[in-house]
Amino acid sequence: MNYRMSLYLLGQISITIACTLVIPLALSLGYQETGTPIWFSISIAILLSFGIPSVVKKPKDTNMKAKGGFITVAIAWIWLSAVTCLPFILSGVLPNFFDAFFEIVSGFTTTGATVLTNIEIVPKSLLFWRSFTNWLGGMGILVFLVAVMPKTDNSFVQVYKAEVPGMSFGKMVSKLRFTARILYAIYIFLTILLFIFLVSGGMPVFDSIIHTFSSAGTGGFSNKNLSIAAYNNIYFEIVITVFLLLFAMNFEVYFLVLIGHLGLAFKKEELRALFAIYFVSVISITASLFSHHIYPNFGETLRYSSFQVASLMSTTGFTTTDYTTWPLFTQLILLILMVIGGSSSSTAGGIKISRFITLAKTSIRDIRKTISPRTVKNVKYDGKIMTDDLTSSVTSFFVIYMAVFVISVALISATNTLSGGEGFLTYTSAVIACLSNTGPGLSLVGPAYNYSFFSGFSKIILSLNMLLGRLELYPILFLFYHKAWKRY
Amino acid sequence: MNYRMSLYLLGQISITIACTLVIPLALSLGYQETGTPIWFSISIAILLSFGIPSVVKKPKDTNMKAKGGFITVAIAWIWLSAVTCLPFILSGVLPNFFDAFFEIVSGFTTTGATVLTNIEIVPKSLLFWRSFTNWLGGMGILVFLVAVMPKTDNSFVQVYKAEVPGMSFGKMVSKLRFTARILYAIYIFLTILLFIFLVSGGMPVFDSIIHTFSSAGTGGFSNKNLSIAAYNNIYFEIVITVFLLLFAMNFEVYFLVLIGHLGLAFKKEELRALFAIYFVSVISITASLFSHHIYPNFGETLRYSSFQVASLMSTTGFTTTDYTTWPLFTQLILLILMVIGGSSSSTAGGIKISRFITLAKTSIRDIRKTISPRTVKNVKYDGKIMTDDLTSSVTSFFVIYMAVFVISVALISATNTLSGGEGFLTYTSAVIACLSNTGPGLSLVGPAYNYSFFSGFSKIILSLNMLLGRLELYPILFLFYHKAWKRY
Repeated sequence: MNYRMSLYLLGQISITIACTLVIPLALSLGYQETGTPIWFSISIAILLSFGIPSVVKKPKDTNMKAKGGFITVAIAWIWLSAVTCLPFILSGVLPNFFDAFFEIVSGFTTTGATVLTNIEIVPKSLLFWRSFTNWLGGMGILVFLVAVMPKTDNSFVQVYKAEVPGMSFGKMVSKLRFTARILYAIYIFLTILLFIFLVSGGMPVFDSIIHTFSSAGTGGFSNKNLSIAAYNNIYFEIVITVFLLLFAMNFEVYFLVLIGHLGLAFKKEELRALFAIYFVSVISITASLFSHHIYPNFGETLRYSSFQVASLMSTTGFTTTDYTTWPLFTQLILLILMVIGGSSSSTAGGIKISRFITLAKTSIRDIRKTISPRTVKNVKYDGKIMTDDLTSSVTSFFVIYMAVFVISVALISATNTLSGGEGFLTYTSAVIACLSNTGPGLSLVGPAYNYSFFSGFSKIILSLNMLLGRLELYPILFLFYHKAWKRY
Repeated sequence: MNYRMSLYLLGQISITIACTLVIPLALSLGYQETGTPIWFSISIAILLSFGIPSVVKKPKDTNMKAKGGFITVAIAWIWLSAVTCLPFILSGVLPNFFDAFFEIVSGFTTTGATVLTNIEIVPKSLLFWRSFTNWLGGMGILVFLVAVMPKTDNSFVQVYKAEVPGMSFGKMVSKLRFTARILYAIYIFLTILLFIFLVSGGMPVFDSIIHTFSSAGTGGFSNKNLSIAAYNNIYFEIVITVFLLLFAMNFEVYFLVLIGHLGLAFKKEELRALFAIYFVSVISITASLFSHHIYPNFGETLRYSSFQVASLMSTTGFTTTDYTTWPLFTQLILLILMVIGGSSSSTAGGIKISRFITLAKTSIRDIRKTISPRTVKNVKYDGKIMTDDLTSSVTSFFVIYMAVFVISVALISATNTLSGGEGFLTYTSAVIACLSNTGPGLSLVGPAYNYSFFSGFSKIILSLNMLLGRLELYPILFLFYHKAWKRY
């Protein structure tokens, strides 16, 4: 890899994040908090003292290959999480490094899993930063860099590939930086729109900011212990449900609508699948809850199921009810929804709907091949033929994802003390909730609990799971693969 | 498909199984049991009255395509299970059809999961038949037909492919019927050897017969409620451990040894992986059990762990201890071993080690492709290049297997009443234990329990899981795929 260029990019992103940290710093001064202004300043100082020397001279060779881009992105996410979790450690909110690191990785990766036992006593500036990381991580930290750069080098293509989720990266316009700008413009527009909806519905301004950022990034951090349940307000629930689905949609759809190609936009297979999965899940969960008399009437049943399905399939993790009291069948559906996740090029996590469409089509083709090898055609996606290399990379992604899942559950079960079914459901759902960037899981990591009871080692494993999920495996895996570090 | 030829094959296999039923009939007469001689005669009568008319005239067109062969095999297994479970229903041992069908499907598929709550009061002739189905299903029912046929048609190739487990079918010798004969000769030789070892160690003759058949088929049916634990005999445990590993080996290895190619035999990747997985699992489970002081000393710890690992990785399911009292980590390893299973062309179940080797190699190749697309080479297995079609069929098999697993767990959780972690662990492990043809699972389907509490619908789902696992998905899936039924 090109070390000089990698360092240059890390410097630039450090400076960018230092600038964004000025907002919580200003908030901490505005709210006259004690301590936090200093702790934020320390983070800013560290980022600048690393960043400025790294960018003074732009390397002559700006060329960067895939492995270099991937490793740079992985280092950037870990580095930024480690530095910006310092205010949590120094303020005593989360004195243990593992806890603070877990919390901020959970933020940047838009997971929203928390180790905080009482959110409402945490200083507002810290709560703001926590939610803002959801927003920054949603569309990609380095993608933001690409958007603001006056000129894009080849090096940015690899960085962009590593951060934008989905099975194949589609440039909407020929120039990468314009694609990044379009993505961010749509993102900012939807964010502002959601904020207006929440504030005009009567949510306090600070709460609206928090929930807007965590909704937009499909992260799910709240400033309330009860999450959205704290408001018991149907209007907020409907607004958030709609916006979570909007943020879980492939952003290319918005672009196609903007340039007038409505027909093309609504023909996208991933879009149709998203809404099909949403409605089938809501119907089956509502039916199960209603037949078990979990809520007093049909309206309430539909209210809670339609919100939880949107929240968990968009991998946000907001809660309006403790779904761990629901029948096991409905909880399993929620777990499956987390694994599937949202669309490519959205802020949602999970394996992504597009990959599942590909897996299904490839499997059906291979079943057909068993019967009549000669008459089988290629796999098509959105009307285009997929190469064997592409379908193979998608199935391999699934296989590696499963391997990471199984190894993580085994490692966590070996280093924690829960036993039997409770342990199995807790650990399994914790790993799924972290890998898919959802946040809350089932059993003892359900909405009524948090991740604080895990061992330090497990918190590192779960933090890695969040990074593996958000960066879609390869950038993090390459960190452990010595050949990827080779200079070219 | 060729209906006439399909009927002819079903007739032949019906007559063959009617002949084998003469053994339990003779036993029931010898033991002077009341009732069972009549019930076995009824099964024989049904099989013969269907079989004889179907074989009187051999069809002129003996040609059979893949789909026809697959569907014929699926129908044969369901038909034979339905008819030969009648003695269990009529004798009142399992008066409910779902229970009796489950028990015999569990036998033929070498699963060994039982709905019997007290095995020791069951008439001996029924216990014999139950164990003998383990043996018959182990190497394949129709493969036996192929072996005894004087001439093999093209139609048998498809039947053989559908029954012999593994990712690709290797003919050891150019003629199919000789391959089948070699397989059965090795199988019968090992079976006799095991019987001699058990009897000469002091196990009663009837018990030795039962345990020999269920070991050889890696089924796991016992005539003792406590399974192998009933004897508390280290000699039996060592003998059975060794033979279970022998039956989980790819039978091609024996053939290579027989024809003097020892070097080639020991170079087989699947053979090395089998023993590597066995020893790594035994070491890690022993370490965990020893550190948790589960057994009084290291010797006892090694004794129980080495037996249980062999029993569950060969997907047999014999037990010498209740491993559901072990730490969760060790139980998860056992669950993973069940999913992996034994070797191709062995009597063991699971996804098979060869497929996991292929999955690992394909994934690593695809990761490498991300870094440097041009320098990546093909996947090799046992020194030979695998085509993209073959690797794709293996990954698709894995994807469909996972889909069957998830759908089965969801269906069972929707139709049974357990909740929370206990329900999750019970249903998950039940589906894994049935799909992998192991038998006992964890929690409420662990060694101390049985499958009797499941709803009738769940018993059908679990029976289907056993058939899907044993016949490796496609034959059973094709039953539900209308195009596979088309005449050519």
